[in-house]
Amino acid sequence: MKETRFVPPKGAFTRTVPIRFSHCDPAGIVYFPHYFDMFNGLIEDWYTEQLGVEYAKLILDDRHGFPFVHIETDFKIPSRMGEHLDLTLLLERVGRSSLSVIIIGHLAGIERLRARLTTAMTSLETQRSIELPKDLRDRFEAYLKLTGEAGKSGAWGA
Amino acid sequence: MKETRFVPPKGAFTRTVPIRFSHCDPAGIVYFPHYFDMFNGLIEDWYTEQLGVEYAKLILDDRHGFPFVHIETDFKIPSRMGEHLDLTLLLERVGRSSLSVIIIGHLAGIERLRARLTTAMTSLETQRSIELPKDLRDRFEAYLKLTGEAGKSGAWGA
Amino acid sequence: MKETRFVPPKGAFTRTVPIRFSHCDPAGIVYFPHYFDMFNGLIEDWYTEQLGVEYAKLILDDRHGFPFVHIETDFKIPSRMGEHLDLTLLLERVGRSSLSVIIIGHLAGIERLRARLTTAMTSLETQRSIELPKDLRDRFEAYLKLTGEAGKSGAWGA
Amino acid sequence: MKETRFVPPKGAFTRTVPIRFSHCDPAGIVYFPHYFDMFNGLIEDWYTEQLGVEYAKLILDDRHGFPFVHIETDFKIPSRMGEHLDLTLLLERVGRSSLSVIIIGHLAGIERLRARLTTAMTSLETQRSIELPKDLRDRFEAYLKLTGEAGKSGAWGA
Repeated sequence: MKETRFVPPKGAFTRTVPIRFSHCDPAGIVYFPHYFDMFNGLIEDWYTEQLGVEYAKLILDDRHGFPFVHIETDFKIPSRMGEHLDLTLLLERVGRSSLSVIIIGHLAGIERLRARLTTAMTSLETQRSIELPKDLRDRFEAYLKLTGEAGKSGAWGA
Repeated sequence: MKETRFVPPKGAFTRTVPIRFSHCDPAGIVYFPHYFDMFNGLIEDWYTEQLGVEYAKLILDDRHGFPFVHIETDFKIPSRMGEHLDLTLLLERVGRSSLSVIIIGHLAGIERLRARLTTAMTSLETQRSIELPKDLRDRFEAYLKLTGEAGKSGAWGA
Repeated sequence: MKETRFVPPKGAFTRTVPIRFSHCDPAGIVYFPHYFDMFNGLIEDWYTEQLGVEYAKLILDDRHGFPFVHIETDFKIPSRMGEHLDLTLLLERVGRSSLSVIIIGHLAGIERLRARLTTAMTSLETQRSIELPKDLRDRFEAYLKLTGEAGKSGAWGA
Repeated sequence: MKETRFVPPKGAFTRTVPIRFSHCDPAGIVYFPHYFDMFNGLIEDWYTEQLGVEYAKLILDDRHGFPFVHIETDFKIPSRMGEHLDLTLLLERVGRSSLSVIIIGHLAGIERLRARLTTAMTSLETQRSIELPKDLRDRFEAYLKLTGEAGKSGAWGA
């Protein structure tokens, strides 16, 4: 498979995940459900550290839920114990009540995996989707602008 | 969201997963990475119980790996502790060294989630993709026939 | 290490767990936190299938919590992918608001691991420990009697 | 329950774990098997960052395994999403082929949980326990000295 280079766009939120013994399977590579757990942790940190919105508060106090409605992932290169995988989050689309993010896993400038995850904001009381609050939407738009809307085009497929 | 009815095609491999306390998050619904773990368990059981090929032997003795290369999932209705989720596996496509399966999660005839997972068979020695052995391919083809090729069309999207 | 034989006492609740690819680590054996998840699943099934008390209802409707306060585990023989581990639950002690269970993991009559887990019943509303309801206590006592109080003595250590 | 204060001894290895959505259960507190995963991660980091021995190398290159043979844990105060739990590792005992560590979870100077974990060093080739290599033993002894042997007495129970 041809390698794909990846350099995070300016302003993009990136966190490094140490690949642990516990992530790996008898084949010695990351057992894939752990990637989804890493994605969720990255999104959590993005809210708290980048957007300045405490994720725990959104859930516990504001009673918002963020269930995923659609996920697509390309796994390109496996990762192994002892490696440090960089995960970069880009915003692709801000809908009325939904949000699509692109997460790229990369190491030493080479793309290892790429996911698109779409969440719908819900009320934990009614279990129905609700419109994104203006304050959150403003922060999403600001992040889109900060990253030059890099997640909007060409980030997937092509 | 409009509900989608799902009835497993004749001959399809279905297993029931009890939704446990441990699967659920503070919002009371299944934390989504657990679904991927359930999918992997279903595929394992399908090899062993339906195809008559012991999955553990494929990995440990034959040194084959089955890393996922692409996953798409639609999450339609969340599942909760105490429910019993039925998972049905259909085969969509048998490639030279890859395999695409469709997994449908359903309960009481209503579809809850649907995933397409594509694996590439690799050698654990060389880490390279290898051609599906004829014996395995024959078993996959037999399952395709048994299920009336139900996974081939209309199973995704539409 | 000397092998310890284990035969479940008459009446004891036993369930078999298939050791999956996903349970195992790069050393090819079960990654130990998964055992604790198996224990929790066994206890859940014991409530529902043996005691006739739906565990999900206890949590979601009655708002009871069962946090563990103390856990001890001896890991004697590792388990590997493809094996089927039997887990037997014995009751050791029924306290005012706490419960101690012994879980023995065994395969082909040989003990593989043994744990003692003590839970305290709490109210999810007040987060404080509460007295075991009489109905539950009666069911625990009945199970103690059914198993000849086998968990009470000699089950640990010796 | 009376609160127990905990201040890490001088020189002790401490890492902070953010309690995530994914760690918590429908009761809103950490699902306990995750603590054991956190302990394993802490031990991994202690090897790599404190002792200067790359944990991945020990497993993958030197083919050493570190299965746990005995674990005891007291869970005192539950932890919740959004909190940051400090984990401190102390060494209790260095045996011929085994190692006992004490891990204390604490927050704001109050102890939340305390575990003693004993591992036996094994060869992944023979699956038998092997003597601790002198280099490792020296590093363990140095850590014991660095922490004033604080893990040796009074660290458990009392």
